[in-house]
Amino acid sequence: EVRKEVTKLNVVDIAELLEELDKSSYLILFRILPKDMAAEVFSYLSYEQQRYIIDSITDKEIKNIVDELFFDDMIDIIEEMPANVVKKILKNTKEEERLLINQFLNYPENSAGSLMTIEYVDLKKEMTVKEAIDHIKETGVDKETIYTCYVTDKNRKLEGLVSLRKLVISDDDKTVDEIMERDIIYVNTHDDQEEIAYLFKKYDLMAIPVVDKEGRLTGIITIDDIVDVIEQENTEDFQKMAAMSPSEQEYLETSTLSLAKHRITWLLILMISATFTGSIIRKFEEVLQSVVILAAYIPMLMDTGGNAGAQASTLIIRGMALGEIEIKDILKVIWKELRVSTIVGVILSLVNFMRIYFIDKVSLKVAITVCSTLFFTVVLAKIVGAILPIGARKLKLDPAIMASPLITTIVDAVALILYFSMASWILGL
Amino acid sequence: EVRKEVTKLNVVDIAELLEELDKSSYLILFRILPKDMAAEVFSYLSYEQQRYIIDSITDKEIKNIVDELFFDDMIDIIEEMPANVVKKILKNTKEEERLLINQFLNYPENSAGSLMTIEYVDLKKEMTVKEAIDHIKETGVDKETIYTCYVTDKNRKLEGLVSLRKLVISDDDKTVDEIMERDIIYVNTHDDQEEIAYLFKKYDLMAIPVVDKEGRLTGIITIDDIVDVIEQENTEDFQKMAAMSPSEQEYLETSTLSLAKHRITWLLILMISATFTGSIIRKFEEVLQSVVILAAYIPMLMDTGGNAGAQASTLIIRGMALGEIEIKDILKVIWKELRVSTIVGVILSLVNFMRIYFIDKVSLKVAITVCSTLFFTVVLAKIVGAILPIGARKLKLDPAIMASPLITTIVDAVALILYFSMASWILGL
Ligand SMILES: [Mg+2]
Ligand SMILES: [Mg+2]
Ligand SMILES: [Mg+2]
Ligand SMILES: [Mg+2]
Ligand SMILES: [Mg+2]
Ligand SMILES: [Mg+2]
Ligand SMILES: [Mg+2]
Ligand SMILES: [Mg+2]
Ligand SMILES: [Mg+2]
Ligand SMILES: [Mg+2]
Ligand SMILES: [Mg+2]
Ligand SMILES: [Mg+2]
Ligand SMILES: [Mg+2]
Repeated sequence: EVRKEVTKLNVVDIAELLEELDKSSYLILFRILPKDMAAEVFSYLSYEQQRYIIDSITDKEIKNIVDELFFDDMIDIIEEMPANVVKKILKNTKEEERLLINQFLNYPENSAGSLMTIEYVDLKKEMTVKEAIDHIKETGVDKETIYTCYVTDKNRKLEGLVSLRKLVISDDDKTVDEIMERDIIYVNTHDDQEEIAYLFKKYDLMAIPVVDKEGRLTGIITIDDIVDVIEQENTEDFQKMAAMSPSEQEYLETSTLSLAKHRITWLLILMISATFTGSIIRKFEEVLQSVVILAAYIPMLMDTGGNAGAQASTLIIRGMALGEIEIKDILKVIWKELRVSTIVGVILSLVNFMRIYFIDKVSLKVAITVCSTLFFTVVLAKIVGAILPIGARKLKLDPAIMASPLITTIVDAVALILYFSMASWILGL
Repeated sequence: EVRKEVTKLNVVDIAELLEELDKSSYLILFRILPKDMAAEVFSYLSYEQQRYIIDSITDKEIKNIVDELFFDDMIDIIEEMPANVVKKILKNTKEEERLLINQFLNYPENSAGSLMTIEYVDLKKEMTVKEAIDHIKETGVDKETIYTCYVTDKNRKLEGLVSLRKLVISDDDKTVDEIMERDIIYVNTHDDQEEIAYLFKKYDLMAIPVVDKEGRLTGIITIDDIVDVIEQENTEDFQKMAAMSPSEQEYLETSTLSLAKHRITWLLILMISATFTGSIIRKFEEVLQSVVILAAYIPMLMDTGGNAGAQASTLIIRGMALGEIEIKDILKVIWKELRVSTIVGVILSLVNFMRIYFIDKVSLKVAITVCSTLFFTVVLAKIVGAILPIGARKLKLDPAIMASPLITTIVDAVALILYFSMASWILGL
């Protein structure tokens, strides 16, 4: 029957299938899933559906799901549910579990504590390999991973780790003590997820142990959740770099008002800054009045400056995010951008000269004014674009805010001052 | 002695340590590493150092490294080495291995073939659990992963997979046939890495099997390499979105000329496009001449339009990259952006009105001209920013090129036409 067919599918595909059904039929389908599968499928559903299911099923069914859910997923779900649903969930957990849930809910967002789960394999160093494998056989079904096992002493202090691979290929009568690794990479409960993701990338980890201030093992973080962190941190950077306050919600699920709220602050700040650029034009109103043609090249100068700066700042911001560029590299970076911008600036100015002198047929003096401003704007934009993100890091700000929008606004102003000064000087106004 | 101290360290840390030493001492240190560790450390070194080491060590030492290296890492190294170094490597491989190397070098860049490795555990479905585990014990040391094992028939056709977890917790006398999963997620040798990364994220995979056109298992891809792919694809998007041709090289290791080359094309295209914006100003020269103050608000209008458009396009590009927004969502997206831009546009226009009417003290008509242009520019920018990336996907182009720089250039032109038309109309010029 249906049940047999469905259980052959991957849990992620079942969750996807459920998302497509209407409420009444997905409840029926969900209820025929075997106990262990139900919890897994449940963890892949949207919060919306999770809420609806908990609202609709019996306490006994909730208890079954809660028992099978991994602890990190349960915490994530509790964080998103409204109070009455949370109450219904907590009612179906044991006293000591509720204490632990409270402790986990208190870890700061984006910390190791908020990512870790408690279902890890715990070994003692006195165990033999055979005893360790038997222990895994007995307890392994409920663990998030059994491929890295953690060795702790009687005070739960982390002493070492041993991979299941090592256990499987080692002789049965060796002790865990003999084969475990002692040079462990671990994090603390309050470490930031971005640094943890960096360790996973650097050391090609599958899981990392999390210890508390006293060095006691409190949980593990697994790679599948770190992959989500990596994409989340990238999304954050994309959003910051486009002058938005970051949000973790999916676009289509975000309300209009919330989208507007995330965008308006920076738009206002940048708009008001841009009016200062305008006041530069007002200051040079006479120059402009006598040579109105100068106005025609303002957009080109501003856009090219903005684009040139955005290229530099993007590479630097990205390089820092990946740990390839550090604060100490600032002189190397400036020197590189100075050379790159000279090459790029010369080419752009030459092409632009031909464009405006031969096609627009402006006077030689105007052409020279425009092209030399263009050159200096490009050089300046690239230097500013390179320095600001590094400076932000130095000031412990996120380099990602020093991206195109802000750089453009700054470069715009300087480009205009340059432009009109050049014009006054070359055209003798 | 030193050797004992060093071998206690993590291979990644040893590689990092080597990078800091000068050539003569790092060769000495590298040579005292035990055979299996040497290959692992080697795979974490920079290509520069790998080349130097191969140049400096004996054929026998090369053979030791080559034997121990994982196949995917060896292919990556061969791809980067100059011809004489490649020759030295190939001389130390067996005939049949050379054939395989040639086959692997032919897989297109960024395809499954270019990411996969051949060291996987191969089981037969007739094996019992005990036989399977014994087989893993014997062959497991040299495998990239033993945690997912692949079941193939006598023609190497992929029939199923079984996790080591399942093997460890199952009864010894069950057969692999009874416990293996048959609903397998797999990819073909020519599939693109971006889609493969998507599967890893969706199904929380640790490894994925790669099959050829005939359905024969040819290799596996592991999560550590997919994590690198994810960051690489994100970097590509960051670069494209800042109007650069993408490059996989690290910033500090890229030559000035190469950096310039990756930047100049788009800068030229965008600069020339911006001159069309300039010609709009020239068309309206008279309007500008009679009300020079209008020029003062051009930067603000252009920048705000650009920023508003960049916000929308960034969210849409990112949403599509993560598989959250699809082509069929276009109407939903337009409708959302219409509402968001109305809210944002009204706020910006009001603030701007107060700014220029009460502080700059421009005439009411000018203030109305500026603010209504601002409103329509913001709405238009957001709609354009939302539609273009989706349109690009529809045309099978990369949505990432429809980002801030291009949007800004388009919105600039339209904003100016709007501005001057409004001005002519409202100011009755
Ligand atoms: Mg959490
Ligand atoms: Mg890595
Ligand atoms: Mg988890
Ligand atoms: Mg998860
Ligand atoms: Mg962050
Ligand atoms: Mg960040
Ligand atoms: Mg490769
Ligand atoms: Mg996932
Ligand atoms: Mg690999
Ligand atoms: Mg690798
Ligand atoms: Mg790609
Ligand atoms: Mg892409
Ligand atoms: Mg601009």
